[in-house]
This record gives sequence, C-alpha cells and structure tokens, in this order.
Amino acid sequence: MKWGTHLRESIQVETDLFARDCPSRQVLDRIGDRWSVLVVAVLRDGPKRYGELAATIQGVSQKMLTQTLRGLERDGLVTRTVHAAVPPRVDYALTDLGRSLLGLVSALESWATTHIGDVLAARDRYDTR
Amino acid sequence: MKWGTHLRESIQVETDLFARDCPSRQVLDRIGDRWSVLVVAVLRDGPKRYGELAATIQGVSQKMLTQTLRGLERDGLVTRTVHAAVPPRVDYALTDLGRSLLGLVSALESWATTHIGDVLAARDRYDTR
Repeated sequence: MKWGTHLRESIQVETDLFARDCPSRQVLDRIGDRWSVLVVAVLRDGPKRYGELAATIQGVSQKMLTQTLRGLERDGLVTRTVHAAVPPRVDYALTDLGRSLLGLVSALESWATTHIGDVLAARDRYDTR
Repeated sequence: MKWGTHLRESIQVETDLFARDCPSRQVLDRIGDRWSVLVVAVLRDGPKRYGELAATIQGVSQKMLTQTLRGLERDGLVTRTVHAAVPPRVDYALTDLGRSLLGLVSALESWATTHIGDVLAARDRYDTR
C-alpha cells in the first residue's frame, strides 16, 4: 500500500494501513462501522433529531446510537446542536468532513445491495459442503 | 434508503440497510471489517500464502487472521487452495466477487489517507474542550 504524508495542523502524519499503530486504521474502523455508516446515510438528507435517527435505524440500541453519535462528533464528522426549547431540542448534522464520506457510503450501500445475493449463495454453498 | 430486489439463485432478496434483520447489514459488516479490508488489499496483487498475509498485516493475531480468511471464504470473496507439497502450501486469492470489492477498498484507503489529519485534529479539539 502506498505511503502518504498528510498535514495535521502542520504536523506531517505518515500513513500505512498495514502498520500496527497507524491511526489510519482507526479511521478505517470508523468508516467501516455499521452504525456509523447508517447514521451518515440518514443524515444525508439533512439534520435529524435523536429520536428520528433512533426510529429510522432499526435495531440500534440507545446505548449504541449515543456512542456512535459521540464517536462521529469526536471525529469531526457530525455536529450536535442543542436548541433552546422546552424540552431542549438536539439536532445532529453532517459537517463538511462528514459530507465527504457520502460518496463512499453510497458505494458501500451499492456494493452490499448489488452483491448480497452472491454473498448469501456463497454462504449456503460453504455451509453445506 | 432505496429498496432493491436481488436475485439469489432465483429467490428475490429485498434489501433495506435500515431494516433490523436485513442481511445487507451483515454484508456491510464484512466490507467494513478492518481485517477483511486489509486482507482484500493485500490480495489485490495476486495470491498470497498465510504466512505472507500474517507478515504484511502487522498486529493481526493468528486467530483473527484465520477467522477473517474463513469469513471471506464463506462469503465467496476469497478462495483457499491447498497445494500438494511437503509441507502442504496453502494459497489465498480473490474471487471475481472479491475483486469487485477492490474499487471500494481503494476508496476506503483513499478517504482514510486523505482525511486522517482532519479526523485527528477534530479528536484533539473534542478531547480538550
């Protein structure tokens, strides 16, 4: 895999996904995380409240959704905005960095959707051989 | 997210990543899995032996690598070929289905490499606020 050097607030970060401690692996984990991908996909169409995210992404626990949103916020991919209201309203939205993931998320969705039949058929063959 | 229907050996599979039990989520987990992505990336250049994979992908335990290869084989993404030799030689290679992942894997690598500085800077800001 190619090496790259990247400016991190004037610090050069060398990346190598194959290297044990390279932070690019953590970035890969974030992009690859099931719940993160689904949250980014829901926010594609605009800001959403916590309850809307929870209702759209079936099967996510409150704990996982909260953890995922906090992780996305920490990584600079999502903003959390508290609006003065009674009760306070909390919106989540993609940042520009988060929006830069949308092409990748669409490609992931598209691959999963296109090839799911092949994968399931391969599993059947493997499990019955 | 759009619904799609997909032929699975003459069974239609409807996919909806937001649905609790949709198998497309498992497919997403496979594509998103750190070790799976790295194995597919290493196999990009041709078949590799187990030992070559273990040596290239730093930090992967033998248990994780074995599990990952078995999962990729079960999903029809990788073949495992045992060559008659003493000791027997075992090669792993991408299938056509596995090769269809290469564009996505490159896009994942590219995003991680391009934006790692932004993500690390965002984490610093979050952790010191």
